[in-house]
Parts: sequence; C-alpha cells; structure tokens
Amino acid sequence: MSWLNEQNEAVSLRIEKIPFATLAQWGYDAAEGRIRHASGKFFSIDGIRVNTNWGTVAEWDQPIINQPEIGYLGFIVKEFDGVLHFLMQAKIEPGNVNYVQLSPTLQATRSNYTQVHKGKKPRYLEYFQQAKPEQILLDQLQSEQGARFLRKRNRNIIIKVEDDIDIYENFVWLTLAQIKELMRHSNLVNMDTRTVISGIPFGQVQSQVIDFFNFLGNGKGRSSVEKAFLKSALSQEGSVHSIENIITFLTQLKSVFDLEVRKVDLKQMREWVYGEESIHHETGKYFKVIAVDVEIGNREVVQWSQPMVEPAQEGLCAFVCKEIDGLLHFAVQAKLECGNHDIIEFAPTVQCLTGNYRQTKEGALPFLEYVLHAPKEQVYFDALQSEEGGRFFREQNRNMIIIAGDEISEELPENYIWMTLNQLYTFLKFNNYLNIQARSLIAAISFV
Amino acid sequence: MSWLNEQNEAVSLRIEKIPFATLAQWGYDAAEGRIRHASGKFFSIDGIRVNTNWGTVAEWDQPIINQPEIGYLGFIVKEFDGVLHFLMQAKIEPGNVNYVQLSPTLQATRSNYTQVHKGKKPRYLEYFQQAKPEQILLDQLQSEQGARFLRKRNRNIIIKVEDDIDIYENFVWLTLAQIKELMRHSNLVNMDTRTVISGIPFGQVQSQVIDFFNFLGNGKGRSSVEKAFLKSALSQEGSVHSIENIITFLTQLKSVFDLEVRKVDLKQMREWVYGEESIHHETGKYFKVIAVDVEIGNREVVQWSQPMVEPAQEGLCAFVCKEIDGLLHFAVQAKLECGNHDIIEFAPTVQCLTGNYRQTKEGALPFLEYVLHAPKEQVYFDALQSEEGGRFFREQNRNMIIIAGDEISEELPENYIWMTLNQLYTFLKFNNYLNIQARSLIAAISFV
Repeated sequence: MSWLNEQNEAVSLRIEKIPFATLAQWGYDAAEGRIRHASGKFFSIDGIRVNTNWGTVAEWDQPIINQPEIGYLGFIVKEFDGVLHFLMQAKIEPGNVNYVQLSPTLQATRSNYTQVHKGKKPRYLEYFQQAKPEQILLDQLQSEQGARFLRKRNRNIIIKVEDDIDIYENFVWLTLAQIKELMRHSNLVNMDTRTVISGIPFGQVQSQVIDFFNFLGNGKGRSSVEKAFLKSALSQEGSVHSIENIITFLTQLKSVFDLEVRKVDLKQMREWVYGEESIHHETGKYFKVIAVDVEIGNREVVQWSQPMVEPAQEGLCAFVCKEIDGLLHFAVQAKLECGNHDIIEFAPTVQCLTGNYRQTKEGALPFLEYVLHAPKEQVYFDALQSEEGGRFFREQNRNMIIIAGDEISEELPENYIWMTLNQLYTFLKFNNYLNIQARSLIAAISFV
Repeated sequence: MSWLNEQNEAVSLRIEKIPFATLAQWGYDAAEGRIRHASGKFFSIDGIRVNTNWGTVAEWDQPIINQPEIGYLGFIVKEFDGVLHFLMQAKIEPGNVNYVQLSPTLQATRSNYTQVHKGKKPRYLEYFQQAKPEQILLDQLQSEQGARFLRKRNRNIIIKVEDDIDIYENFVWLTLAQIKELMRHSNLVNMDTRTVISGIPFGQVQSQVIDFFNFLGNGKGRSSVEKAFLKSALSQEGSVHSIENIITFLTQLKSVFDLEVRKVDLKQMREWVYGEESIHHETGKYFKVIAVDVEIGNREVVQWSQPMVEPAQEGLCAFVCKEIDGLLHFAVQAKLECGNHDIIEFAPTVQCLTGNYRQTKEGALPFLEYVLHAPKEQVYFDALQSEEGGRFFREQNRNMIIIAGDEISEELPENYIWMTLNQLYTFLKFNNYLNIQARSLIAAISFV
C-alpha cells in the first residue's frame, strides 16, 4: 500500500473535458458516421441500432466502443521460494479513480504494440511475443463489457519465466493471495488484472480428497466460507445441474432470443443528442461520450486527447451463493447484451450497470433488493471496482458476493441457473461464456 | 435398404433450372442488394466482401447464404429391448443426389415452424416444443458450412420419449449402429443426421477400465481399429496436448488472424457475373447460385421455386489419424472460413471444398496427396456424403478417415494439432469449435 502511495505521488495526471471540436487526431467522420482516430487505429465510437426480442425494449439506438483488434492482457509470473509471484505494473490511466492501479505486466492493443502512435514499445512485450509453449500457463480470449464494447475481446495470457528479469521502477512482484487481498480495497486492482486472474485454473478433485484437505487445513485458519468456496471450486460431483444440462439451458435461450445490431450514424441516433461536448441520451440516463485532454507526467510528460465514456451513475454487480446439498452454488444469470459475441453470456446474479438498457420496473430486478439489504455477516465481498481507465471516465461499480441462507429459495427465475465454482471455471476456460462482470467477481474469491 | 428403395419409389421429384426472373416469391431486392423471399423469411443470398490476413488471398467477394434464424435438427429416441432407437425420416429434398435420404425426426427452420409458408406444421414439432428437461439428452448450437453460410447455426437436439408414439409412413426406428452402417453407403444419411449424431456424448473413463473393456469385448469381434477409436474416445489421459494447450493454440491463431466481412450488393461483386440463370465466378470455379423450380409428389404434389447453390466440383474431407504413445490421435486443422461465427474452427486434416477460396498452389495442400494415395488397408472410411439438399444442388463430398503409420510424422504443419477423440468430443460439446465437416467425419466412427 505504501509502495502504491509512492507510485501515486511520483506521477501527475491532469484530465480536462474538452469540446469534441478540439480533439487532436480524433474527429467525427461524416462518411462513416463515427468518431475515429486519424490513423483508423485504436478504437472508434460508433452508433448502433439494436433489435431484440429479449427484455421489454424491442429496439434502441446507442453509441458503442468499436475496437476490433485483439490486445494483450498479460502477466509474467515467476517462482520465488516455491511461491508464484505476478509481475504487476502500477499504471496510471486517464479515467482511473485512484490515479495508479495495479495492472498486468503488459496491457497493449495491437495498435500499441505495432506502434501506431510512434511511442515507445510497451515494456516486456518481447517476453510474450517470444514465449515458448511450455511457458504459457494460460492463454484465453475473453470478452469485455457487452453493453459498451462491440464484440471486443482481449487475450488473457500468463507466462512463466525462469531466468532473472529486469524490473522497472513502477513494477512489483505480488502473490495471488496479495492481489486478492488488495482487491478488497476499492479501486486498487484494475479490471484487466481481475479478468486475467479469474481464469487461473484449479483442476478437479474428488470430494473425499477435498474434505481431507479441508480437515488438514483446519489448523491453518481457513474459514468455513473459504472451505466452501474451495470445495465448490474443486469438486466435480454433487452439482445441481450437469455441464450438459447447463449447455442445454443456454442453447434454449440462444435459440429463442434474437440480437440484431446494425450501424447507424452517430448523428442519426434516435433519442441521443450529439452536442458540442457530449453525446448523451435525452433523459440524461445511461452514459455519455465525452472528449478529454490528458497530461500524464512522471519524468517526462505525455499529452494527448481522446474520447471517453462517462457513466451516469454507479452500478452494482453481485453474485448470490447458496449451499445446496452440501456444495456452494452460484445463482448465475444468462444475460443478453448488445455487444456480446454470441447473444448471451453468463452474468452475475445482479448486474445493473448504467448504459444497460434492459431496465425492468422499479424493484422488478431479481435479487437487487435482497443484495442491497443483505445482513453484514452474509456479505463475503464488498468493494468498489473500476472499469478500464483507458476508455471509461471514473467509472466504478460495486462488486458484492453474498452467501445466502434459507431466505433464498432453490427455485430461480427463468433465465437463472445454479452452478458450482468448478462449473464456472469450466465455462471460463472455453471462452465467451462468462462475461467480464462475472469474471471480476470470481477473481475476488480467495481460498486461503 | 429395401425400405429406403420403397420410399424412393413412392415419391416423385422434378427439379428444373430456371431463370432468376421466373422465380415465384423470390427476387433481387435492389435496395438491399440481395435475393430474398417476399416474406423476408427463410434465407437470402447476399454478397459479401471478405478481408483477411489468413492464406494467400487478402480480399475477395462472394455470394453467401444468409439464414440468421436458428432452426431445429432434432431426433426423437426411444428404448426398445434396452437399445436406443432413433426416429428417422426418409426425407426428400430438391438438391439430393439420392432423392430420399435418412434425416432427423424434425428438420425445421423457424420460418417453417412458425409457418410462414402457410403449409402444414412439421411432424413431431410438438414433442420438441414440449420436451421436459429430463427428456433432453443433447441440445447444442452447431455451425454449418462456413464457406457457404454466413454464421449459420442450428440447434442439434435429441429427446427421449417413454410413451408410444405414432409413426408416419416415411419414418422408421433405427439404432445408432445401423445409422453408422448406412453411412458407409454413399448419400444415404443426410448432413443433418450426421451433425446431430456426431454430438452424442460418451463420457470419460480411465485407461485401465478401457483396456479391461476391450479385453472383455475381444470375443465379440471388435476389431483393433475400433478398439483404438474407443480408447481414444473414452480416455482422459495420455494425449499429446492438454485441453488447455489446445485452447492456447486456438487463442494464438484467433489473435493473429483477422476476418472482416462486409455486405456488398450481389450485382456489385468483383469477379462475379450476375447472369440471367446463375451468379458465377468469372473463372467458372467455386460454385454458382442458381434458381430452380421444384415439384415433389407423394399423394399430394407440392410445387415451389427457390435459389440454390451448385458446386463446381466435388470436394474432399479427410481425417488422418495416428497412434501416438498408444493412443489414436487426429491431425486437426485450424481453419478460417468467411462465414465462421468466431474466425477459426477445427476442421478435418484435409478439407478442400469447392467454394473455398483459400487454395494453395497445386500439391501444396498438406496431406492431400497422401490421403488420395493411401493404401486400402489404411482407409477406415470412404464414402460420398451429401450436403444439405434444401440449399445445395447435388453437392457431394468424399469423406475419408485414414489410419496412418510411420510414414506420417508426429510433426505437423503450423495450423494443425493432434487431438484424441475424447478431446474432439469435449470441444464439440462446447459449440462452435468443430466445423460441420469435422463433425460429419466423427459421426462415421463406429465402436462396434
């Protein structure tokens, strides 16, 4: 924490909202109907018209971030005294609430690492580009926020090094346990770190072995909730539904619900106002597209301007868990979002982000009231987490995990299904099943 | 076979190529630049422009079938004397080579079953619509030909009934072994049957159990190749690569290769000629879009016209298998096709379909010469199989499975990877990993 404070003090950030007209290199392209960079790289702000038979609104327009390139979110890990350590970067991003957040070793879009901006090559890039197959512990394509990004995905990758490695001054080695502990503080661990560590596999073990393991671990202070999470993560047996049942559940929803997304000119979007300083909804709801001028300084000062997305309010993402037949299960929501790669992804029990149009009537969002009023002893996790500060202007969402008792029935609403943590990890492995909000919450679960 | 002959004699099919101008209900829509049905339903023939850094051709135009609706490919199964039987339909489709082919119980697009054509409700539809969760043995979304269909998927579903069920005269109960035996004859089992039965799960067993099982089965005449397939299907251990390694392999390819598909007007496609009777490539290669007038008669005669796709030549799909460390592995190709839902899917070792632009130089297609000249005793499977006769005019592809010896090295070309049958089944379960050509070949593998 004190190292992070030092890192924060060593940098300066000036960020200022500006009119779209004064953006350098960025501008509205009338032929394409979108805001893009002069190079055509990085990302663009597009307008889309969404048609769906999901939810209560059949058609709407909205701006969306279009970033078709697949970038790297990568960790270098190394063993010290038998414990795996992650090379973390204290990285400043213009939209961050806490200026500096703990980020992966490498966080780079293809435009970054092919150096469209003619800047420096990202640190440690060569380790990822030259990684041998046996060094790769994890390499997955995972989705980003489906309400804000159009089918965006990043490559979540972890590579292990054996040799010594030069450590630059804003980098630090942390264990997984330390990262998870730091996540309990608001806005210290960035979104990209959370998505990558959520994918770390645990393997599968028989129930008896887990019971024995927990028995041995008793003296070491593992609490009953951590034991329950561990058992749910490792056990292949005892789940309410089989993996095949869950695939059937998802197939049925994907077969019934349509999602059609067409491009529309940003200036032709219905119900949206393209103003001089923001693109916003007539009602002021959801989110705005803004333009910012940024100056980040350490020894040298870097200045640029760019469009960003600013939320209208804070959101909430929560998993409700419950022990069923001796095994902790998660109430997983199947959720359609307009930017999803494949119509529907698995989401937390409650996910109400600003920018999400699928709003039900006041109080009609399942589990929302329950989560907001859960007694303190049932709240396993509760912290504010930032969205990615390179695109989102000071956006934070409350992340919660609730361990429910008998007050929550085993009966779930139609588009919800109980899964063990082991099953969530299985779907996570096969990509594009779990959304980023679900993965961010899973990253918060600790077994020690 | 004789029942099939009877079914063939009981129907009549007249199919005639006609000019596009005489299509009833179908026509070129100048505003949308495509050929579509008056209702806007069923499917359309669109023009696309493809940009990719995969292969040797960076940009091309082509027509493609656009059918965004997810339809049913469904089997009703029932146990008779302890053996599961599949309710097969002897179904005639206009493009079929052998008029009648063995098809799933239900084969229906959403336009069919919501009765856009105001025809009769498809037989047995209600069994699928009213299926209880415990009746569903399989329910998966699987892709269709990526070179011909734009991101088309169907719902592959198998439901089990306990009660007696009325059997219409062109339906018959067959066991899985019988279906697989009939597949060894050319063009008897249709594409839709093959894709659904490819997904039937086998579960996972430890190696020792399989050896014991094979030992017991010795007297029952299971041949050594069938034992090798069974072991490869059931064994979770001993594979050259782990599932995680294979996901890494795929992630790397998906991260490096781009696929951009834009709509272009059918009449504006470069190198394609929009003629009065066909849309064809200047060179005559690949495939043509044609219009046909169809009359199918049984007791009553049904007449309609529609566009179809006619191939320029026969294609070849082949898996090369090889025993590595005592376990049969398949040489699986990672292949980019323009209509793929997610850039790259796993394909057979050799897949050269007409209509596929990714042609390498003569003799440069890996394994092609080897497969064509494989000695007879190494050919496990060799039959012509039809593509779906509702869209494709007499299209058949040669399907082969070769058991290779030492002449094939364990070293594979860059975009190939060894997988066991168990691993192929695992990816099959999670949808959109195995392409339809790979699934069609897997359906041909028999364990008895």
